[in-house]
Amino acid sequence: MEKREFLYEGKAKQLYATDDLNLIIILYKDDATAYNGVKRSSIHRKGILNNRITELIYIYLERKGIKTHFVKRLDDYSQLCKKLNIIPLEFIVRNVIAGSLSRRLDIEEGTVPLNTIYELCYKNDQLRDPFINETHAQALGIISAEELEKTMTLCKKINTLLIELFDKVGIIVVDFKIEFGRDEKGNIVLADEISPDSARFWDKETKKKLDKDRFRKNLGQIEESYREVLERLAKEINE
Amino acid sequence: MEKREFLYEGKAKQLYATDDLNLIIILYKDDATAYNGVKRSSIHRKGILNNRITELIYIYLERKGIKTHFVKRLDDYSQLCKKLNIIPLEFIVRNVIAGSLSRRLDIEEGTVPLNTIYELCYKNDQLRDPFINETHAQALGIISAEELEKTMTLCKKINTLLIELFDKVGIIVVDFKIEFGRDEKGNIVLADEISPDSARFWDKETKKKLDKDRFRKNLGQIEESYREVLERLAKEINE
Repeated sequence: MEKREFLYEGKAKQLYATDDLNLIIILYKDDATAYNGVKRSSIHRKGILNNRITELIYIYLERKGIKTHFVKRLDDYSQLCKKLNIIPLEFIVRNVIAGSLSRRLDIEEGTVPLNTIYELCYKNDQLRDPFINETHAQALGIISAEELEKTMTLCKKINTLLIELFDKVGIIVVDFKIEFGRDEKGNIVLADEISPDSARFWDKETKKKLDKDRFRKNLGQIEESYREVLERLAKEINE
Repeated sequence: MEKREFLYEGKAKQLYATDDLNLIIILYKDDATAYNGVKRSSIHRKGILNNRITELIYIYLERKGIKTHFVKRLDDYSQLCKKLNIIPLEFIVRNVIAGSLSRRLDIEEGTVPLNTIYELCYKNDQLRDPFINETHAQALGIISAEELEKTMTLCKKINTLLIELFDKVGIIVVDFKIEFGRDEKGNIVLADEISPDSARFWDKETKKKLDKDRFRKNLGQIEESYREVLERLAKEINE
């Protein structure tokens, strides 16, 4: 697969075209940003770790019947993926209260809510990815009612599958953010990544944070924590 | 009905107990605030006008089968209402884009969205009434899934009824905010008010604003505009 022209630069990833119009290459960077780009740095080998973690999780999800954009890993930092028409929504799933929601609703971090919380944010840099609801998303014309039902059902399924997987390796899935796209047939397909950059993972016993909060809150041991997540998953998921 | 002790002071209303435990008196004030209390003033006779407008609208809605807390008007500034256990949620219904949503999503005021937009805000002064969604509301334990379904269905019905009523008097219902409470049997009942303080009303022909935006944006003719709404409604609704 030949890497062609550069397509897009995100905060933590680069996208490249390939000689197949239906495939792209995603390169995971070591760059880290937090608080809407206010805090910036580089985390040693983060790209390698997130490339592998997403690979393992997406292989697992595919086996459980979830369509993902992942095709295969190409090298340490990059993976081959299906090219999708990305829906400009962040789907956030929260099993435990943490981060911005803890501040917004004044609920102590670590509280288990009465029910799983699902949130939508409109991916729009100029508007700073505002929090919206399903009626806004439809009104914006970025997703149909039918697609919203499908994506919300997928969020629930993926959450159940991730909780099961991570429980086996002693990790609590606190929350995570996912994105979806449409393939050439209009199927809804899981895109983007699932990694300690886009999720909160806590050790079940010690409650130690094994995710980007170590960077956000200057807790140290960032690379070690990401590696811990990868090593536990690698033992559980047979490739 | 004897007015007893003072219960609560809101931004635009006062609540009093009565000698009947199931009834309260709501007094509509002339006070006006905007932008979370930053802008404050008094609008001549606003209390009288909103007291009458809410009375007429709630009489109309009751006739159409909507349970409301309204019992009867007592005098110019006050009305007798059923005492409810208020659900701490603002239910916002938007037929046309205006106000804060126009800024938040960068959509021009006056745009008609593809579908009606429904929003929830958590009534909490300390948190400044944050915008939330249905999964947050349930997680906060302030409303059950069953009650949410009932209130959302009521929002749709009330919106349809208001659009019909106001269309007859040449007014567009741009958006409105309502609140619900539970009566002693647990029934969901429409509470609070529907007035130019809590809704946006535009003249159908001229698009002239006939609501609190005249105060927010210093457009003048505030009392006259509220009076215009009242007079048009009074001609349509036979008491």
